[in-house]
Amino acid sequence: ARPRVGYFYSGKKKEQQLSENMMNMKVRDFQSIPVVVHESLSVYDAITQMFLEDVGTLIVVDEKSFLSGILSRKDLLRTAIGTTELEKIPVHMIMTRMPNISYCKKNETLVQAAKLLIERQIDALPVVESTDGGLAVVGRLTKTNITKAFLSLAENHDF
Amino acid sequence: ARPRVGYFYSGKKKEQQLSENMMNMKVRDFQSIPVVVHESLSVYDAITQMFLEDVGTLIVVDEKSFLSGILSRKDLLRTAIGTTELEKIPVHMIMTRMPNISYCKKNETLVQAAKLLIERQIDALPVVESTDGGLAVVGRLTKTNITKAFLSLAENHDF
Repeated sequence: ARPRVGYFYSGKKKEQQLSENMMNMKVRDFQSIPVVVHESLSVYDAITQMFLEDVGTLIVVDEKSFLSGILSRKDLLRTAIGTTELEKIPVHMIMTRMPNISYCKKNETLVQAAKLLIERQIDALPVVESTDGGLAVVGRLTKTNITKAFLSLAENHDF
Repeated sequence: ARPRVGYFYSGKKKEQQLSENMMNMKVRDFQSIPVVVHESLSVYDAITQMFLEDVGTLIVVDEKSFLSGILSRKDLLRTAIGTTELEKIPVHMIMTRMPNISYCKKNETLVQAAKLLIERQIDALPVVESTDGGLAVVGRLTKTNITKAFLSLAENHDF
């Protein structure tokens, strides 16, 4: 073990790298491709889409393709057990909508995004860019991305 | 910024702490309470239980209270849209069952558990203890736990 107090020679240290790595982890380097559906899609088709893409969260956009809502597996499951005609309900009836959506930007740190995921008790954040007309959806950041980032910290070091 | 090469005085370094913290992170320190249901519970009641406890994964146990299956939101959603009589289907009909369940032990490192979550593409692991009769369920480890661990690495340091 390295002595905790004293003078010693320092190359580029593992520990130093680890700290630097964590500071430099940005949303853009770990985000996933967003899976986006339109507000008018039926709940049934949204569930199908969620299975096809194998994601836990669908991002809903309006007719101008700007962010308008979020659909979690929980939202879809709640509707699926409460309703029989899932083909007739558009997702905008059940989605969480703006301004109640938490999101992040690609240049934020992963630590900021992780904080938001935990504080709001959600599984995923849309990654957005502000434009004149609204928020353009450019990515999706999930607890899976954070778990991979956590592993990448470990993989860079010999524990 | 600290010079990357050279001699310098070292107290207990932030970077050193970070590295040590990561090595010392064990499943037992981050695990959640397991939410357990019996094999004979109906799918409908399992969904209700999942909402009541607000978890993404239910752990299924047999009559001796040993691990026998896992139910994800995805499993329940698939059944909910494919079937009308959710009250009549017991969860053992739809669960992922032993030996196809990934699990971990409380003394394993969080890095080992995180690797398993990513490799198997699952959201949660039961934390188990081996006994003569089977695997006793003592906890639940999820990507939320890993995300909190990731944050705790950052919170111990001034980035």
